[in-house]
Amino acid sequence: MKLRSAFLAATTLIAVGSSAAFAKPGDPGREKVVAAIKADHDASIDRLRKWIALPTIANMNINHREGAEYMKQLVLDAGFQQAKIIDTAGVPGVFATLDAGAKDTLAIYFMYDVKHYDPAEWSSPPLEGKIVDRPGEGKALVGRGAVNQKGPETAFLTALRAFKTSGVKLPVNLVFVAEGEEEIASPNFSQVVTQPEVKAALEKAVGIIIPSASQSVDGQVTLLLGAKGAVELQLISSGEKWGRGPTKDVHSSLKANVDSPVWHLIKALNTLVSEDGQTPAIDGWYDNVKPLTARQKELIAADVAAGNEADDMKTLGIKHWYKDEDYLTASYRLAEQPTINIQGLVSGYMGPGGKTVLPGRAEAKIDLRLVPDMTKDEVISKLKAHLAKRGFGDIEVNVSGGYGPNQTDENSPLIKAEQATLADAKIPATLSARSAGSWPGVVFTGPPLHLPAGQFGAGRGGGAHAPDEWLLIESTNPKVVGFDGQAVLYADFLYEVARTAKKKN
Amino acid sequence: MKLRSAFLAATTLIAVGSSAAFAKPGDPGREKVVAAIKADHDASIDRLRKWIALPTIANMNINHREGAEYMKQLVLDAGFQQAKIIDTAGVPGVFATLDAGAKDTLAIYFMYDVKHYDPAEWSSPPLEGKIVDRPGEGKALVGRGAVNQKGPETAFLTALRAFKTSGVKLPVNLVFVAEGEEEIASPNFSQVVTQPEVKAALEKAVGIIIPSASQSVDGQVTLLLGAKGAVELQLISSGEKWGRGPTKDVHSSLKANVDSPVWHLIKALNTLVSEDGQTPAIDGWYDNVKPLTARQKELIAADVAAGNEADDMKTLGIKHWYKDEDYLTASYRLAEQPTINIQGLVSGYMGPGGKTVLPGRAEAKIDLRLVPDMTKDEVISKLKAHLAKRGFGDIEVNVSGGYGPNQTDENSPLIKAEQATLADAKIPATLSARSAGSWPGVVFTGPPLHLPAGQFGAGRGGGAHAPDEWLLIESTNPKVVGFDGQAVLYADFLYEVARTAKKKN
Repeated sequence: MKLRSAFLAATTLIAVGSSAAFAKPGDPGREKVVAAIKADHDASIDRLRKWIALPTIANMNINHREGAEYMKQLVLDAGFQQAKIIDTAGVPGVFATLDAGAKDTLAIYFMYDVKHYDPAEWSSPPLEGKIVDRPGEGKALVGRGAVNQKGPETAFLTALRAFKTSGVKLPVNLVFVAEGEEEIASPNFSQVVTQPEVKAALEKAVGIIIPSASQSVDGQVTLLLGAKGAVELQLISSGEKWGRGPTKDVHSSLKANVDSPVWHLIKALNTLVSEDGQTPAIDGWYDNVKPLTARQKELIAADVAAGNEADDMKTLGIKHWYKDEDYLTASYRLAEQPTINIQGLVSGYMGPGGKTVLPGRAEAKIDLRLVPDMTKDEVISKLKAHLAKRGFGDIEVNVSGGYGPNQTDENSPLIKAEQATLADAKIPATLSARSAGSWPGVVFTGPPLHLPAGQFGAGRGGGAHAPDEWLLIESTNPKVVGFDGQAVLYADFLYEVARTAKKKN
Repeated sequence: MKLRSAFLAATTLIAVGSSAAFAKPGDPGREKVVAAIKADHDASIDRLRKWIALPTIANMNINHREGAEYMKQLVLDAGFQQAKIIDTAGVPGVFATLDAGAKDTLAIYFMYDVKHYDPAEWSSPPLEGKIVDRPGEGKALVGRGAVNQKGPETAFLTALRAFKTSGVKLPVNLVFVAEGEEEIASPNFSQVVTQPEVKAALEKAVGIIIPSASQSVDGQVTLLLGAKGAVELQLISSGEKWGRGPTKDVHSSLKANVDSPVWHLIKALNTLVSEDGQTPAIDGWYDNVKPLTARQKELIAADVAAGNEADDMKTLGIKHWYKDEDYLTASYRLAEQPTINIQGLVSGYMGPGGKTVLPGRAEAKIDLRLVPDMTKDEVISKLKAHLAKRGFGDIEVNVSGGYGPNQTDENSPLIKAEQATLADAKIPATLSARSAGSWPGVVFTGPPLHLPAGQFGAGRGGGAHAPDEWLLIESTNPKVVGFDGQAVLYADFLYEVARTAKKKN
């Protein structure tokens, strides 16, 4: 997941009670469900390990169909009454429903793909799911997808299985959608959710969550109310498309009378941002940018007050924020400002020293971060128009993925139910106004669905996209729950969604 | 060798006579020398093959000392009375002298290093020196260094050996200097030629040549009167040196409040050239640029008149010269204009698609081409001052090699002797005003030596810096000479140098 809840810090810590203390009077069958979760522990971990052993990697064409079939079977086994694979132009999606005869419906979003990995960098095989000791934390399972996102997703399915095996009626109906391209910015996921049948099912939901395990070492959970959008693209200048300069690399002595596609790209890039390399300068870029609200600033200020600027800077390897702004101003900017980032440059000779070539091609890898109310289509067309107007219309804009920003109302029943569930579990929670990182929530929060959406869960893990990715299975840290606690929290959340929706009705 | 005598074409072809017809009356012992060259043929090719088997590759730290020792032994075997290795800050040079008791002295420059190679791209092992058929041309030896430059150099040494073995007195004294870093732009060669002993010996010479085999398929040889200088450098922007931005790659969502070393580099590069990406815009860059003389334009116009624009464009993969200039204007520009070329760009993520990083480092690989009277030191200090003045003083200017331009008077005895030798051999020759490519001739043509200098030789080869580099050993093309013919031409050149110098005196 491309989630980064930047610079959020724990609020005053409240002791976390045992999972048995979560229950509210009147949650029918909860004790049976909790017992079933505990009885299912070993089998659950085994299911997680088997799922990890089948990695779907979107951009490497690994296990696209197999991953979708596996995902479908997992939800059927967990109690969904129907599940089907939804083909897209890319990796297939999965759609499933569980009608519990309840009044309200909750939607669930899963990603079944994982980031690629290099086994040489891991201390145990990335597909093995080895259990290791984490000093001061407990026992953790190590594997690609452990926390991002198969681990928390497995905990959610374990909760559903517990209802099923203990014969307890689910408090809410469920609609399930999954994709296998989250790690490449969900290029085709809207094709899944706009299928008439899928859309009709989702429209009934009070909101949608993706399971996550994001407790800090102090036990704190951050609830994201929004995230910037992200569009990834490559700008490619080539002699072939330009019709000037060489179609291949030629000897560099020819620079005097042969045009250079590399300089052409540099000149184009130069127009995209302000002189200090920071502020987007594309025509009309700010037309739809909304400033932060007073409430969003209040939430950010609360985070900043509890944060540690020196630690943040040290982690990032920086000495100054942009323009030497203070921590609060820099944090406002992080949430508020759209960005144009260069991820990488590729052209000509890239080995040690030099080589006398005039390259026929140059590429800049770019990501655009979008804030409300910018949209993906808007920024791509504005970028293209900007380039064309300045004589760079030949430069290819190769969009490899992306989506707009998302924002969810903190007063929506979904967020209220999340807060209530965590409060009952004595897990401290803060609201994040907006993550500078991105996730494809706009598929749900934007038109036509307009659903509240966000990640949700307890438990703890780390190493997403990195070697030795892990999820805490048995926690010795009283502030953090282990795998069973994660599943219990999801069971309690289902009760709470029904309760909150009832209040609202 | 970084030689490119761009856009030169054959003048009206004159039939090439047999090598026996080269002689002028009064060249004492010439027939014995020619016979000795022919008798030495197989042994000469064997020496070339053995030399090729010991590649010196400057930037890969391969055979630095071994190559110098081998070079020294080769010249001692060819008749030099003393030879010594001259240590430098890099790969060692070699200095040798041969006092024939003659009135005049000729200097010889060798490179004993070769370009690196990938055996997988070759049709026979690059160090084997296999003899292969070239349809329509004859038998060629394939190996790294075959034409660039061990083949022609071996032919020159074969000529010297022939004088020695046949007991014929050399018509001129010889001074020999060699380097093992030509392929990385001779960063330390001036340390060799400015050694007092070396300098004193070189000062006696009428001029200096590097052996070359550059006949076209029509038999034509081009005599370079000058070449642009070249400086290779890498511009490196990093969070570490800048003191802003990250010291490593961080998540790209942070672009809003973290400065980007990549954008910093793009903004710096943007200032180096005009808006169309072509004309250098560094402060004071043109202060010492001399326009072409009427004579230089005349020589270029003659080349262009005999050239084929469509073929040149096809070879380069271009459809237009810069600014849609005509062939002649573009050719003037090629010779006259200094350039700033980007050889390559390196930053952040460079694989397929994208990756959400904000890189901590970005590098542009640059070469500068210099025309008279620009100097290497001048352009480096102007580049640094230009960057510093605009707030880019933190960007590292890592100079990996280079030298200034060179120019030799077409009326010098060296060029006159070259022309006379070729005319006697009925090999058509044209004068090139200036190559846009570069070679370190300025070490000789510049202060303190001010020697006429250039490549010289007959014979034919190709594939310099590329796979399957070759040198024609036995020519079936009557317009082109083979290996023995190359050696005979060098013998005749030695006679001619003495004769021309005598006329001059």
